Amino acid sequence: MSAEESVVIDPQAIKELQLLDAHLSDVDTEITAKQHLMNAPILAQRQSTIAKIPGFWAVVFDNAAAELEAAITPSDSEVFAKALTTVEVLRPEIPSGAKPTDLGLDKFGEPRSVTINFHFKENEWFSDSVLSKTLYYRHGKDRSAGLVSEPIKINWKAGKDLTEGLTDAAYALWATQKQNASQQLDGALAGDARKARDAAAKELPEYKNVVKLLGEKVNGAISFFNFFSYRGRWTSAQENAEARAEVKARRAAALAGKDEEEEDEDEDFDELDFAEEDVETFPPGHDVAVSIADDIWPNAIDYFLADSIDSDLEIDDEDDEDEDEDVEME
Amino acid sequence: MSAEESVVIDPQAIKELQLLDAHLSDVDTEITAKQHLMNAPILAQRQSTIAKIPGFWAVVFDNAAAELEAAITPSDSEVFAKALTTVEVLRPEIPSGAKPTDLGLDKFGEPRSVTINFHFKENEWFSDSVLSKTLYYRHGKDRSAGLVSEPIKINWKAGKDLTEGLTDAAYALWATQKQNASQQLDGALAGDARKARDAAAKELPEYKNVVKLLGEKVNGAISFFNFFSYRGRWTSAQENAEARAEVKARRAAALAGKDEEEEDEDEDFDELDFAEEDVETFPPGHDVAVSIADDIWPNAIDYFLADSIDSDLEIDDEDDEDEDEDVEME
Repeated sequence: MSAEESVVIDPQAIKELQLLDAHLSDVDTEITAKQHLMNAPILAQRQSTIAKIPGFWAVVFDNAAAELEAAITPSDSEVFAKALTTVEVLRPEIPSGAKPTDLGLDKFGEPRSVTINFHFKENEWFSDSVLSKTLYYRHGKDRSAGLVSEPIKINWKAGKDLTEGLTDAAYALWATQKQNASQQLDGALAGDARKARDAAAKELPEYKNVVKLLGEKVNGAISFFNFFSYRGRWTSAQENAEARAEVKARRAAALAGKDEEEEDEDEDFDELDFAEEDVETFPPGHDVAVSIADDIWPNAIDYFLADSIDSDLEIDDEDDEDEDEDVEME
Repeated sequence: MSAEESVVIDPQAIKELQLLDAHLSDVDTEITAKQHLMNAPILAQRQSTIAKIPGFWAVVFDNAAAELEAAITPSDSEVFAKALTTVEVLRPEIPSGAKPTDLGLDKFGEPRSVTINFHFKENEWFSDSVLSKTLYYRHGKDRSAGLVSEPIKINWKAGKDLTEGLTDAAYALWATQKQNASQQLDGALAGDARKARDAAAKELPEYKNVVKLLGEKVNGAISFFNFFSYRGRWTSAQENAEARAEVKARRAAALAGKDEEEEDEDEDFDELDFAEEDVETFPPGHDVAVSIADDIWPNAIDYFLADSIDSDLEIDDEDDEDEDEDVEME
């Protein structure tokens, strides 16, 4: 297309657009919180109804497989069908007193952080009755932002580990790092300090073990249960706090019309050689968590009913997020 | 998958799920209204900034082509690049006094109805300075629901009609029907009365002309400008009012635990032989309008900046509607 050619971009206008975009994103986040709060009483009622339908969540996850990027294998599906009793999604960083009528993002904490609980009945695969995964929405000092999490220990029964040792290895690495002074997982490292930490991480036997297993275990690597060891970018609460303060400062400077310091621009944010990349057992973890929390959880009834039953009580599910139905024609 | 096999469905539980789903959909609709109201002041500021960037909307529509199901041809693109000055999206059925802090769907009218205004400077294709398309979210007595609209007259200059006569023909059919007693476009027809109306419509020369043109004009038929003659299901305000009352009554009956009357179930809602199907000049009209209003309009800055400029003021555009970014890894 030739559209771009005719565009003469005023740099100041671009700065303004970026600021406006940041404000629109804040509204999006606030809306996420409001919708969560408004849905909560309806979803609580839904849990009672779902309790009367054995296998509800297994059907939902089967029908929603496309949203999970095919992370669910036939073996995972079998576990869900035979043992998954309840799923629930919480927003641990929305303050308990928040109301849908509140206005202002500061009233809602960080609504994008989620806890996803999977409840299981006694089964042949593992001894846990609940697998609870909390993912925190965090900003990094490298200007990254996304969901990060700690690996969950799954107590697999002998010979039944669907991840072929990966969740154990990922958990062992994390546990070692937590106790190792060189790793400073609770710190706010950047630049050379981060590089030194990463270099030390790569020397840990537990790190090497995860790398080795990821190389060997193609089948194990694709089980959905690796979701429970997803970590994402290693970003501590401390680093998040500092990085958010920096974002605010940049915004304030932009609002005041000040150009950013050149030194800032020069930091090598694009260097993607973080130690965590080579030991991530579930790369789509951020996206899968967002799919579960923002799509599968609120729309579970639609996924369950799918094409099997034609509902005639709905008056308005035609133009929600997904726009791929053509209501009247064709 | 074998999940379905183990499911024993309690019919009462299914009714409950359908009711809960209807309530969740109501929250979705209310959230749409709140987000529109909360975004409004930011989007008003955005219009002033956009005014400083010639070609802004042409770039947006180029970059958003995938969301429009490839409805934009190179010729359409040229018109946008050379003449499109401003786009705006309004919600004509949200009452002017509505506030984002209001609670309850009844406070927000029908937030899914939209007006999309395209402003053009003087150009070689048509003499209109604004093409304004209003789409109303309406329920039909056949239990359909979706956006419906009246065709807009585009005053094409001689030899410049990108739709090769289709928008004129669609407009002529609509104008004829409005004045023809047999058509009752403002009525609330159902069953045999609707069938009789449809049979009469098919005899109108203007109807036959649209059918003929649609058969002949493959190129004309794919221009985005046919969007302005999109009609959707022919559903009047009157039919919408009656159909919504019926939906409410069905919901109330379901809430009271009453089964639906068998006669209702027997109506042949699935018979898709409506007269409008054969003369629809823009079948994806509902979806395209929803894409423009709910995605392209609020996210225009993202579409404009796309990959060209790396914004560093955004703190949270990573997990909005589209979840296809993997923030830190890969």
